[in-house]
Amino acid sequence: MRADPLSVTFAALADPTRRAILARLARGVATVKELAEPFDITPPAVTKHLKVLQRAGLIAQGREKQWRPCRLQPQPLKDAADWVETYRQLWEQRLDRLEDYLRELRNKEK
Amino acid sequence: MRADPLSVTFAALADPTRRAILARLARGVATVKELAEPFDITPPAVTKHLKVLQRAGLIAQGREKQWRPCRLQPQPLKDAADWVETYRQLWEQRLDRLEDYLRELRNKEK
Repeated sequence: MRADPLSVTFAALADPTRRAILARLARGVATVKELAEPFDITPPAVTKHLKVLQRAGLIAQGREKQWRPCRLQPQPLKDAADWVETYRQLWEQRLDRLEDYLRELRNKEK
Repeated sequence: MRADPLSVTFAALADPTRRAILARLARGVATVKELAEPFDITPPAVTKHLKVLQRAGLIAQGREKQWRPCRLQPQPLKDAADWVETYRQLWEQRLDRLEDYLRELRNKEK
């Protein structure tokens, strides 16, 4: 069974190094070498992470032979945000209830 | 290495059955049996998915012996949304550029 696009995106985001790579690319294009620098991992390990991000459509890599710059592609992030946002009402309701409760506590103290 | 909370959340969301379970629980509490009904999978398979969701803090299960209702806990979804939202500017810029381009094309056609 081939995974659906949203599952592939969430799986790609389920790693702190991959999220850090995306955060770096949000500031502009970068080479694999530049992306590897801040991490205590080998270039092949970075390449592996980049492949996961690429399969999810989160990044694209240029075709220049030596300098293959990576760039972020935000569409899958938008799709992930659209999905998560459908639950916004739930956590906002919960925060509202918490505020009501705290207000009640304060009123009792007076 | 223990995974960070955000990675655990994204990994839990990387499955269409688990997302469907969350969508069901967004409408209200449900028993494991009720959650299993719409899916063509066995109750033990549902239990396995529920454990992943529970470890991510996305659901909580009541302690009543027979009827152990599950409820959605929205906080990890809020944390995931907060992370994804930091990229909103990127996809909105991209859509703006696309709109500019389409406007340009239309002007040329006139």
